[in-house]
Amino acid sequence: MGRAKKVVLAYSGGVDTSVCIPYLKQEWGVEEVITLAADLGQGDELEPIKEKALKSGASESLVIDVKDSFVKDYAFPAIQANALYENRYPLGTALARPLIAKILVEAAEKYGADAIAHGCTGKGNDQVRFDVSCAALNPSLKILAPAREWGMSREATIAYGEKFGIPAPVKKSSPFSIDKNLLGRSIEAGVLEDPAAEPPEEIYQMTKAIADTPNESEYIEIGFTKGIPTTVNGTAKNPVELIETLNELAGNHGIGRIDMIENRLVGIKSREIYESPAMIVLIQAHRDLESLTLTADVTHYKRGIEDTYTKLVYNGLWYSPLKAALDAFIHQTQERVSGTVRVKLFKGNATIVGRWSDNTLYTPDLATYGAEDQFDHKAAEGFIYVWGLPTRIWAQQDR
Amino acid sequence: MGRAKKVVLAYSGGVDTSVCIPYLKQEWGVEEVITLAADLGQGDELEPIKEKALKSGASESLVIDVKDSFVKDYAFPAIQANALYENRYPLGTALARPLIAKILVEAAEKYGADAIAHGCTGKGNDQVRFDVSCAALNPSLKILAPAREWGMSREATIAYGEKFGIPAPVKKSSPFSIDKNLLGRSIEAGVLEDPAAEPPEEIYQMTKAIADTPNESEYIEIGFTKGIPTTVNGTAKNPVELIETLNELAGNHGIGRIDMIENRLVGIKSREIYESPAMIVLIQAHRDLESLTLTADVTHYKRGIEDTYTKLVYNGLWYSPLKAALDAFIHQTQERVSGTVRVKLFKGNATIVGRWSDNTLYTPDLATYGAEDQFDHKAAEGFIYVWGLPTRIWAQQDR
Amino acid sequence: MGRAKKVVLAYSGGVDTSVCIPYLKQEWGVEEVITLAADLGQGDELEPIKEKALKSGASESLVIDVKDSFVKDYAFPAIQANALYENRYPLGTALARPLIAKILVEAAEKYGADAIAHGCTGKGNDQVRFDVSCAALNPSLKILAPAREWGMSREATIAYGEKFGIPAPVKKSSPFSIDKNLLGRSIEAGVLEDPAAEPPEEIYQMTKAIADTPNESEYIEIGFTKGIPTTVNGTAKNPVELIETLNELAGNHGIGRIDMIENRLVGIKSREIYESPAMIVLIQAHRDLESLTLTADVTHYKRGIEDTYTKLVYNGLWYSPLKAALDAFIHQTQERVSGTVRVKLFKGNATIVGRWSDNTLYTPDLATYGAEDQFDHKAAEGFIYVWGLPTRIWAQQDR
Amino acid sequence: MGRAKKVVLAYSGGVDTSVCIPYLKQEWGVEEVITLAADLGQGDELEPIKEKALKSGASESLVIDVKDSFVKDYAFPAIQANALYENRYPLGTALARPLIAKILVEAAEKYGADAIAHGCTGKGNDQVRFDVSCAALNPSLKILAPAREWGMSREATIAYGEKFGIPAPVKKSSPFSIDKNLLGRSIEAGVLEDPAAEPPEEIYQMTKAIADTPNESEYIEIGFTKGIPTTVNGTAKNPVELIETLNELAGNHGIGRIDMIENRLVGIKSREIYESPAMIVLIQAHRDLESLTLTADVTHYKRGIEDTYTKLVYNGLWYSPLKAALDAFIHQTQERVSGTVRVKLFKGNATIVGRWSDNTLYTPDLATYGAEDQFDHKAAEGFIYVWGLPTRIWAQQDR
Repeated sequence: MGRAKKVVLAYSGGVDTSVCIPYLKQEWGVEEVITLAADLGQGDELEPIKEKALKSGASESLVIDVKDSFVKDYAFPAIQANALYENRYPLGTALARPLIAKILVEAAEKYGADAIAHGCTGKGNDQVRFDVSCAALNPSLKILAPAREWGMSREATIAYGEKFGIPAPVKKSSPFSIDKNLLGRSIEAGVLEDPAAEPPEEIYQMTKAIADTPNESEYIEIGFTKGIPTTVNGTAKNPVELIETLNELAGNHGIGRIDMIENRLVGIKSREIYESPAMIVLIQAHRDLESLTLTADVTHYKRGIEDTYTKLVYNGLWYSPLKAALDAFIHQTQERVSGTVRVKLFKGNATIVGRWSDNTLYTPDLATYGAEDQFDHKAAEGFIYVWGLPTRIWAQQDR
Repeated sequence: MGRAKKVVLAYSGGVDTSVCIPYLKQEWGVEEVITLAADLGQGDELEPIKEKALKSGASESLVIDVKDSFVKDYAFPAIQANALYENRYPLGTALARPLIAKILVEAAEKYGADAIAHGCTGKGNDQVRFDVSCAALNPSLKILAPAREWGMSREATIAYGEKFGIPAPVKKSSPFSIDKNLLGRSIEAGVLEDPAAEPPEEIYQMTKAIADTPNESEYIEIGFTKGIPTTVNGTAKNPVELIETLNELAGNHGIGRIDMIENRLVGIKSREIYESPAMIVLIQAHRDLESLTLTADVTHYKRGIEDTYTKLVYNGLWYSPLKAALDAFIHQTQERVSGTVRVKLFKGNATIVGRWSDNTLYTPDLATYGAEDQFDHKAAEGFIYVWGLPTRIWAQQDR
Repeated sequence: MGRAKKVVLAYSGGVDTSVCIPYLKQEWGVEEVITLAADLGQGDELEPIKEKALKSGASESLVIDVKDSFVKDYAFPAIQANALYENRYPLGTALARPLIAKILVEAAEKYGADAIAHGCTGKGNDQVRFDVSCAALNPSLKILAPAREWGMSREATIAYGEKFGIPAPVKKSSPFSIDKNLLGRSIEAGVLEDPAAEPPEEIYQMTKAIADTPNESEYIEIGFTKGIPTTVNGTAKNPVELIETLNELAGNHGIGRIDMIENRLVGIKSREIYESPAMIVLIQAHRDLESLTLTADVTHYKRGIEDTYTKLVYNGLWYSPLKAALDAFIHQTQERVSGTVRVKLFKGNATIVGRWSDNTLYTPDLATYGAEDQFDHKAAEGFIYVWGLPTRIWAQQDR
Repeated sequence: MGRAKKVVLAYSGGVDTSVCIPYLKQEWGVEEVITLAADLGQGDELEPIKEKALKSGASESLVIDVKDSFVKDYAFPAIQANALYENRYPLGTALARPLIAKILVEAAEKYGADAIAHGCTGKGNDQVRFDVSCAALNPSLKILAPAREWGMSREATIAYGEKFGIPAPVKKSSPFSIDKNLLGRSIEAGVLEDPAAEPPEEIYQMTKAIADTPNESEYIEIGFTKGIPTTVNGTAKNPVELIETLNELAGNHGIGRIDMIENRLVGIKSREIYESPAMIVLIQAHRDLESLTLTADVTHYKRGIEDTYTKLVYNGLWYSPLKAALDAFIHQTQERVSGTVRVKLFKGNATIVGRWSDNTLYTPDLATYGAEDQFDHKAAEGFIYVWGLPTRIWAQQDR
């Protein structure tokens, strides 16, 4: 008997996941492979992918458009969490994985499969995200990861595929490993593996080089309701539109490129390039609106919460009880994070130049240096007496 | 008897601190006022200041150049701590206050004064920084803050000064309140008190507007030794030179402007504009070098340490036992943070495009997707089994 | 015109708060004083208190029984938070203050008062808790704290009261300052001000000395539902009963005494003695049940949340947005914290000797060393490879 | 060729580690096995162990007394860190592992071995502690863990040993798995695997049952210098003596038993019983002395540091850069933690009843309620104004 009877395979249409189909059946004794391709706004044509799967031996080929849920249920909470892994990466790929896992599990349950499969290798973060998410959603399903075990080189993989009618890729494969969806692109491998070398311009698609951006700045206004972005320049946008609009606007001004040395969960450092125009602008704008509408202690404490949230998501623990508790914290803080942020886009810079909110905690009569100042200056003396008392006692003790 | 006999007053040469001299003597019965002006690279001419103090009634007028110590002992540790208050402000003013307090206390001890005085009002952060720093360094000294109590308007202050021969300022006073030193400028008040309004271009001095910056990018290389910046483009620089050079280079490309709503220690929000070219570039470069030379757990844990460190410094607790313990933590982490960071300066952007170090923890043979990969892919399965086990058990329990 | 027109005064019946009534009217020009005494289970007779207030000049004397809300809405959330200030003090007094503030504000709103008053001095934590809670609940109300300003000694206070018909206390006043309610007693001052001296036995009322406790141990079982204690020895108890029962049971075995040096919010250390039998047993039992029903990461992360929660409550920020967000986090974690804990009470020790839950995450088949072991031992090797990799790389780099 | 040529094996003298000797040689092709037994005060006779190893086929049998270093370099820093894993377990076993790893590596380097071996199975924490510690100290050494792979039952192991002249254990093996050293005993397995069942009295050796303890309390005084315990009842003790003395004194009063559900690093919960009299008393006393000599902010912040420190040690990261940085923090805080703590030992309770220090930060003149009070009560009003301001603004905004 094989490792599983019926498998739902996460499918991209590329050679690697295509080869998984005959491999699972031939080598691991799987009887039936159903493929599932998720439309996350990666821009591939999905009809051909569908056919490709069937030709490669799949018994069923599912294509599911999850763009709306992707933005609403995964990207927007991440914006509320100001989620930037290691202060830089807005989690584009990491946010997609738990959603794909969710529809894989749903399909497995619907079609009576006893396993999930994916094409990840053993060195990345995505395998962890798939495996742990599936375990969280349905721990009775097996998880198969053929590419983690087969040990075939790229050439061997292609040759193996050709034996089962999977055509070799026509164009020479990119030297880079790329993942793309609505939230951005991640680019790694090739010359990028040298942390000292500047990334070549050719790797970017969503963002212009600064030299090629308009010579005029552009102002945009982003409206938020309870921490969720809802309008651009005063016009309500549905979640997918909103991201697309901002990718367009910010990308045109060269905004959203990231070049970083990143710590992977599996214990190694990797050099990663991202472009993520909408997410970068949205997180910046959201943070700024929070600076107007959250108290100091919430803002400061939330930073630690955000870091932990971001690490959990990066590390594959989207569906976990700690993540749920952090969600509850964050959700509570967003109650009054409504208002508008004005952003100037220019030459790679997204500069917040204004912000306003009905819930503002900025109090002109307390903040002003003008004559209308209402602040009780004499209170400061008492405050400083108490504030400095432990230090004073400690210093006295020292003498 | 007055509030103190002999006072050392922190002196800037402006009307407000000049008026403090007769005020302390006339109203508070101080017998002798010694002024102390610290040269922090604010660019004022200090000889005239010296004279002004004497004319205003000071018995002694001290001017002390502390630029070198300012950078070495205050700015550089802050760079090692990646200190950005509320993720934005590199603490230019906050770092100067404990140093001024230190030389005030030293002068008081040398000249046998029984009090320190400063001209801060009751609403800012600086009063706290002065008062608590002085208490930490010599808790037996009194601290006098006449402007916190006198309640005179600007006009009344000038009029009071004129009675004692302090000339009214010749040029119309700026609508902005500005503090400047080697590390940067802070600008507040006036139209900036409206958080919705874009700051006018005229307030900036150290940074060009992006529209006016060169149309060619410029590459620089910054060398660090144990977390301390030591070279620019391969040339060793002393601390003050290094900051000056980078202010020049980065300011020329429009780098280092900050516009933020900030939470003051005294319980209110204020809108602050900063320009701090060198510090912004240095902290960015330092963080990047850390990403190459620190382990993941140190990097992640240090973020919390950095936030606390930054808050302590902002809140006036530079000389405090918690700050000392955080210093010890940070110092220990910097042991291997040596290497070089390559930065591209262009149109307001300081982009790290390369980094290298003899102490790099980036391991090409483990990171690569190429044939030379040494990573044990099979280990991943065992790792994920253990990593995901709590989530799996929790999910099983749920069913 | 006086400081306020109509005031609601927090009233205990003691000399100090009684004197506040004429003082507010005579010295601060208040027209009408309404007193409010909260029944928190402190065991005083409240009818005489009512009369005393009227005799001392109050226009209205309210007595409100809030015991049920005190336990349900204040103590039980604190148990879910395992709230022990500085790892020791279960917040008995600190939890009462926001509830008293709430009914003060409600009374002020009902009776059209423009101010709240309390009898706290300027050195304790309670003034902060009252003032900030009232500000949070109704920022338009003034807060008056006569004892913070009047500067009268105990003798002067009594003499002042006698002028207005307030009788001097008949029995010699205790050398200790004591606060008591259903959750416990706090005892300070007198000989306790020497941190080196052992507290005298006479100060305790709720707990027996160990030498006097039964020579037989007693087992009890406490049942929790979603983190809330609901049963004792299998019998459902309403909140107040449950606390009373456990105070009785645990106090009889000498459990719940605390002797600590505590850091007050106002910058000083104080020596505090508490006795709090029920709360100590409940928090211990609750923590133990969490060890069975929460995942490791939730347990570990929640510790930091608990510390912050506890500090906020101690520091008077019960009604604050950060507290609300922490509540949301904690509430989410308690979903499965249901089950029973078996506790052995004996000679001052409350020892957990057994625990069980339908939601247990303890998995005998994975935990066992017996033949039925289901744990994948080979996975450990892969796990350790990845877990130790950063350390290994760091060590290699070092050589 | 075998997995290694020459191996240094961590050796206890028991059947399991004895069997490793022939197993490594026969099954894994190791040419030479050197055994190393560390004397950590576990109380076994070590001469017979030495012989046993040679009879079982070891080429060399080392026994090293490391008790002094164990206490000084491992236990004492843990006391300074108040290290209690999950707030309960004082790390007795966890602290021993990095020290054993250190002498294993030293022996390997001295004898030219190319590998280290240990007898841990794949489910515990100790394998991680050995493997990662060895990797940190000498990443070029291989690590062999035969018991993790061999999959033999207890019976099979004994039978395998008998083939190579290793005698079967004479007395029926304990149903419990026990680890013991100077710092305490850990007991698991058998009936303890049921978290609902009370542990049987027979498992304890270092602590009396409360019913059997003296009916008179006993007072002891422990002196600390910079956070290190140095005296008992005024008499200087060397580290090993001090631990032995306190084990004796506290154990006699039934102090130091722990019964807990613990989260292991490998993802499962286990039920663990510990007895650790000296460590429990010392950590309690040390914490109390800190409450007298550390400022509030250091005390509160250190708690988070302590939790992280404790987790790192539990999780095998004693030799790691994050641990080193935490050490630096903790070391800095201990500068003034000198003084004496008076502890009453009675019926399972170690109650701190007094503490004093030349470095005390407890200030009687500020803390007192007596006439000599020096605290500035009026300052409180200003303090509360500022402290409560964010809450007040937030509440006003709400209305």
